[in-house]
Parts: sequence; C-alpha cells; structure tokens
Amino acid sequence: MSLPTRYLVSAPGKVILFGEHAVVYGKTAIAGSLDGLRTYMLFEKRNDGFLELNLPKLDLRYPLIWPISALPFSKVAPASKATDNTFSQELTFNEELLKTLKPIVLEGNSGNQNSQEINELQQVAASVFLYLYTSLEDKQTSWCGTTVHVTSNLPVGAGLGSSASYSVCLATGLLLVLGHITIPNYDERISDSNISDSSSPMNLINRWAFQAEKIIHGVPSGIDNTVSTYGGAVSFTKGVMENVSGFQSLRFLLTNTKVPRNTRILVANVRILHDKYPHIVVPILEAIEGISASFKEIINSGDSEKELNQKIEELIDLNHYLINSLGVGHPSIDKVREITAQYSLHSKLTGAGGGGCVLTLLRDDVTNDDIMRIMHALTSVGFECFETKVGGPGISVIDASSTINKQEFLSSSNMQQISGWKHF
Amino acid sequence: MSLPTRYLVSAPGKVILFGEHAVVYGKTAIAGSLDGLRTYMLFEKRNDGFLELNLPKLDLRYPLIWPISALPFSKVAPASKATDNTFSQELTFNEELLKTLKPIVLEGNSGNQNSQEINELQQVAASVFLYLYTSLEDKQTSWCGTTVHVTSNLPVGAGLGSSASYSVCLATGLLLVLGHITIPNYDERISDSNISDSSSPMNLINRWAFQAEKIIHGVPSGIDNTVSTYGGAVSFTKGVMENVSGFQSLRFLLTNTKVPRNTRILVANVRILHDKYPHIVVPILEAIEGISASFKEIINSGDSEKELNQKIEELIDLNHYLINSLGVGHPSIDKVREITAQYSLHSKLTGAGGGGCVLTLLRDDVTNDDIMRIMHALTSVGFECFETKVGGPGISVIDASSTINKQEFLSSSNMQQISGWKHF
Repeated sequence: MSLPTRYLVSAPGKVILFGEHAVVYGKTAIAGSLDGLRTYMLFEKRNDGFLELNLPKLDLRYPLIWPISALPFSKVAPASKATDNTFSQELTFNEELLKTLKPIVLEGNSGNQNSQEINELQQVAASVFLYLYTSLEDKQTSWCGTTVHVTSNLPVGAGLGSSASYSVCLATGLLLVLGHITIPNYDERISDSNISDSSSPMNLINRWAFQAEKIIHGVPSGIDNTVSTYGGAVSFTKGVMENVSGFQSLRFLLTNTKVPRNTRILVANVRILHDKYPHIVVPILEAIEGISASFKEIINSGDSEKELNQKIEELIDLNHYLINSLGVGHPSIDKVREITAQYSLHSKLTGAGGGGCVLTLLRDDVTNDDIMRIMHALTSVGFECFETKVGGPGISVIDASSTINKQEFLSSSNMQQISGWKHF
Repeated sequence: MSLPTRYLVSAPGKVILFGEHAVVYGKTAIAGSLDGLRTYMLFEKRNDGFLELNLPKLDLRYPLIWPISALPFSKVAPASKATDNTFSQELTFNEELLKTLKPIVLEGNSGNQNSQEINELQQVAASVFLYLYTSLEDKQTSWCGTTVHVTSNLPVGAGLGSSASYSVCLATGLLLVLGHITIPNYDERISDSNISDSSSPMNLINRWAFQAEKIIHGVPSGIDNTVSTYGGAVSFTKGVMENVSGFQSLRFLLTNTKVPRNTRILVANVRILHDKYPHIVVPILEAIEGISASFKEIINSGDSEKELNQKIEELIDLNHYLINSLGVGHPSIDKVREITAQYSLHSKLTGAGGGGCVLTLLRDDVTNDDIMRIMHALTSVGFECFETKVGGPGISVIDASSTINKQEFLSSSNMQQISGWKHF
C-alpha cells in the first residue's frame, strides 16, 4: 500500500479545570481538552525537495519555504535518529540544533517575491517545524517535500494551549509523513488511553510535542501537550501526569474576557503573598488541591448527572473564591460570574487569572435560548464566547489523499464534522 | 463616705474582626469592642422598696415595676450569696431561680395604669435584671430600691453584641448598687487588663454577665460579654480567651446591611459543606485561623501605621474571599465592598454573614469628605452606617449622684463625651 499524499491532523486546546496556581507549589491540577477548539493542519506531499509552512493565523501573509537540503541534519546524532528504537528513545533537547536553525528560519522568507517581516512568534513557530523535521527526517519517506497549512479556531495567547496544539499537530503530521507511525484504525478514541504506556504512538507524539513546547516556552510543564495529545482530562502533580479515569466530557461556555494578563507577574504575586502569610496561603493551596481531589472522587461516585453537575458547580464556586483570595481575580471575571449567575450558572476563571478566560458549566437543563441570551449578554460587553465541551478526543488524523484539498481545508468552518477522523 | 445615689454605667458592643465560622471548629477568632457603639444605663436610688426597669429602646412604652419583697430570695443558696467570697466564687447557673422568676417578670407590668403586651425579648431582658438582682442582693446596700434607665446606640440583633453590653451594664450596675464593688479610680482603662486575673472586679462583672447571657442565648460562647467587659481585642480559641496584646484601636466604618440572616442556618450550611468536602473545607478553616494568627503577629511587628494598615487590608480581603468560599457571603456585602473599593477601602463581613454587618477599615489617610461621601453612597442604597473605632474601653462607670439626672440621660446624644468616666 502506498503512503497517503495528504494528511489532515487536528489537536485540541486545553483549559485548566481546577488547581490553577496551586500547581506551582506541587499541588494537583486538572486540565481537560477543549473539544471543538482545535488546531488543524493539512500536510501535502511535494516532489520538489522543499518544505513549506503556511501560517495565516499568525498573520504570516506569504508561506515560508526552505529546501530540505538546507537543513542541518549533521547536528542530529545518528543514535538519536528515529529508527527502530523510535518508541523507547529517551529524548534530550538538542540545543545546538535549535541554534543552528536560527538563521535558516529567516531564509524561509527569501524565496518569496514579496518580502515580509517575520516577528518573534512566527520565527518560533517556524523553528518548531524545522527542528522537528530535521530530528525526525528518515530516508524511508516517499515524500520529497511537504507543504503544511495551519489553521485554528483557538485564540492565541489566551491560556488555551494554542501552542501545545500546534506542537502536537506538527509532531503527529511529521511522524506520519516521515514514516515513524501510521494512521490508526480506531474511529473512536480508545477509552482512557494510558498516559503511562510508553510504547504507544501517542506517547511518542507527546514526547516530540514536549520538545516543541520547550522551543516555545523554555520550561513548559508538559500538561498542555499531554492534554492536547490524549484528550479527556489529565491530572498533574509535581510533573507526574495521569488520566482522570471516569471523566467523559462536560459542556462549558468558554468566555475570553480579552483582558491581557501577565502570567509571570500573577504567579510572582502569589509567591509574595505566600511568603508574607504562610499560615494563610499554605492551607489555601491545600484547599485548592482538595478541589482537584474532590473532582476526581465525584467523577467516579456514580452520582446522577444532576448531582454531579451540582457538585461541580460547588467546586467551581469554591475554586473561584479561593483563587480570588490569592489576589489573582479580576473585575472582568466577576462580570462573567454576575451575568451567568442571572441564569443560575456558575463560572470560574481558568488559567492564571487577572483577566483571561472564564469557564461556565452548561448543565443539561440549560436551554439553547438561554445559552444564546447569555452569549449575547457576554459579547455585548466586549467578551468573546465559545460553546464547547471539555473532554473528548485528543490528536485526530485523516488520510486526506482523496478527500480534503487545500482549498477545502482553508475554507472549511467546522472541520471537526468531517467524517472519518481516526484516533490512536 | 456615703454610697452614690446614681451610677452611670456603659459597656460597648463587639465585632468579630477575624475568624468567623472557623471558631465553630475550634479555630481562633478575634473580636474587638465597638468604641462609641454602647449600651448606657443610669441606676437611680429609690427609697420605696421597688425595682423599676425602663427599656424604651426595646419598645417598652411604660416601665416595669416590682416590689423587692416579691423576689424569690429563698431560691438563692446562702453559699452562693455574694459575700466575702464574691471574687473567687464559681458561678453555676440557677435554673430554678430563672423558672421561679418567669411569672414574677410579668407582674412587673401590673403596677401600670396602662397595660401593655410584653414580648419575648422584653421578658428576657426583665428576667436578666431580676435574676441578677435576686442573686446579688445584699443586706449591706443602703439603697431601698433601684430604677434603671437603659439606652443604647447599638442596633439590636445585628450581631454587634447588644445583649452582651446589656448584660455587662446590668451586672456592673447591680454589683455597684448592692455593694460588691466600688467605683474605680482609674481615668484610663488599665492597659491590657488581664482576662485571666480571676480576682479583678472586671472578672467578677464578666462572670455575672455570662450568667445573664445564658438567660438570653442559652449556650453563649462568652466572647461577647468578655469583649464588652474588657474592651480592646480578645482572641478566643476553644473557649479560652486571651487579650490580644499590643492592640490599640482601629478606625472602621461599620455598615449594617439590614439584610436579616439566620446565624443557625448559616452555621449549619457550613457544616454541610465541611462534611461534604472535608479535603477542601478543613484547610479553608485553617487558612481562616491563619488570618487570626497573622493579625496578632502584625499588631506586634513594629510596622509603621501605613504598613500595618496595608497588611490589615490584605487580611480583610483574604478573609472576605475565604468566608465567601464557605458559601456565607451575600450580594449586600459585595455591594458594600464595591462602594468602598471606589475609595480604595477594603471591607469584610463581620459575624455569620448572609447579610448582617460589614467592616471597612478607615485608614488615617482617608479624608472626612471621602468618609461622608462613602456613608452617603451606602445609606442611599438603604444601609445604615456608623463611623466607629474597634478597641478602646470596656465597662465604664461614673458616680452620677450630682451630675447626670434622668432627663439629661435620656436626652443626651453622646454620653461617651461626658467627662469623668472611670475604668476598672
């Protein structure tokens, strides 16, 4: 069987359900995948020996193009080359490769008749592409070049894991293109694909996505790429990640207040409060961890849908006030709570706070009319709203050789409804 | 020297500064006296063998009057009579005396030409008076009867300790009238009058006031009467009370939201949450105790006034959100916070929550104009405001024989500014 000539790949964004800030102090946080808010990539076969990256969502008007021959394959040690030992391979970050790629990244622009400035974010995105391609290149591929089209309905820089879903899609696509993994046969996500199974394709994707995240974030926690890869919900304690067993999915309204915030400063402010009032802040962080623990308990308690939702709403309120006690609330978040409370709905910030995004649990008894009214109220004060589910599939792929072409890809408004998505 | 023929007595109300709700679980709470929000009583000598109680503030239009001879002195065991062993005496509650007094209380109305209904609260207030008089009666007194006029600028039933200040005033006045203690010589409150000194007149007053509180509340904690007696600030942990050393006074705006609340139900709701989510609520209660501990630390830290106020504001905010996380907040409290925040001031509920009263720290740099504006904003949405100090003197007395008469007492708007108050 010949290899596909087009792959369509998608990976979800993430939200932190519980445990914001406490996670910095070694407490458990729980994150979930954002079903419907995803990055999509179309990988197209070329025969001219070139790599092409199209990033219109990052305001890159023209594609970046490199000859494969320009890549510094010599910087990748043969032992770390992807061969038979692909799945068991320990990945170490190749600092020298990244450094060597820096000038090459900018050359991707020189092939264009129309020159353009490449900003920091665009350079980083291109570096990730070239870093993964150089590391994963394998003589066995039948593709003599690749074009990648990227699109996404995830807001960038809103704490929703857009970079992780970018990394996961790229890792998945290049592992497919370069012959390390093949398209899976599963129509449904394998229930509770175990994060700790180190021999799975998902584990391989996740480890390469984590390398990509290092290029973007320096010292990422790894939770964003893990959630984006595996989907569902993942608990994270001191670097150890586990599937949240029993978690299916929860319907949420996700509101982006668009209030810019600086995560580093918010985290530093909590540290100052922690050091000033340890008798107070240490137990607050324990209480926040208690919310994560209670969430895992109630998910598996066998409660009815109604009881489950009621308890999650209680945890949402507890979390909201505890996070506020740490001084990282924001009037915009209170505003979302105020509006959604008018419809008896409960909201909490997600992420570092100080603005950013807010989650509102949409119970089954909420009517579509009410959801429209709430969304109208929220957008009319300048917020952006997404009706979404937390949970659901992580990385998804389709052999798009005979189905989706570039035009269809770029014009599609809801690629998740394409039939035929396969899951590892 | 002959005994005075009139005593003027006053005792403050109280607010809980920190530790609401957590105190129910054995954590430390801190309460302070409300300087300026006090109960005042004028005790006047009679020669006709009658006792008279005037309670206009409890809507009693006509005085209650009893012949002393109607009191059941036989129900008071000679051993528990107040004699030489007054100060060391262990007080046990005299259930039988209270029962015997029940019908006698109602007879207090029969001497009036104009009959009136006596409601539950008025009956309890009269019971306290007769219970204390019967228990403390001593043949050594030269007063052949007493008239008591009661007034107060404390809202009743707002969680501000109005009943405790009533009990403390009555205990003090009757201990004076019946010759157990004498008017002290101190113009200023003795700094840090030690609660644990069991031989002081204040200790005696406090123990009798506690008996009175039992008549009113059934199972009082004892903190209200202790704060009203000693003034200043008192910490309370599992029934053990201590002076908060180093505490002088803090200026607050006290706002009564007038939202009625049921302390019993609020306390029960926290218990339900505690039992449902122990992993979360137990550390929240520890964090609230941490606020009390931090308050005691910073009071003695030698910080400048500015630093001290800033830290107290941080504790106020922490306390506010932690109490809200327990589900006992209220929109009226948020409203006070919203209004005062417009002037960079910080507010917290005081007491059980669900409405009730709110404290706003008035830093020294707040102008009187701003205070007037804030009070205007708060009263215009239906709240009641008091500019007050927390801390300051507890029980205060004056020999009013030749100074304040009944008319002056009833017409005076600010008895605290009378000169000559003495303190134990």
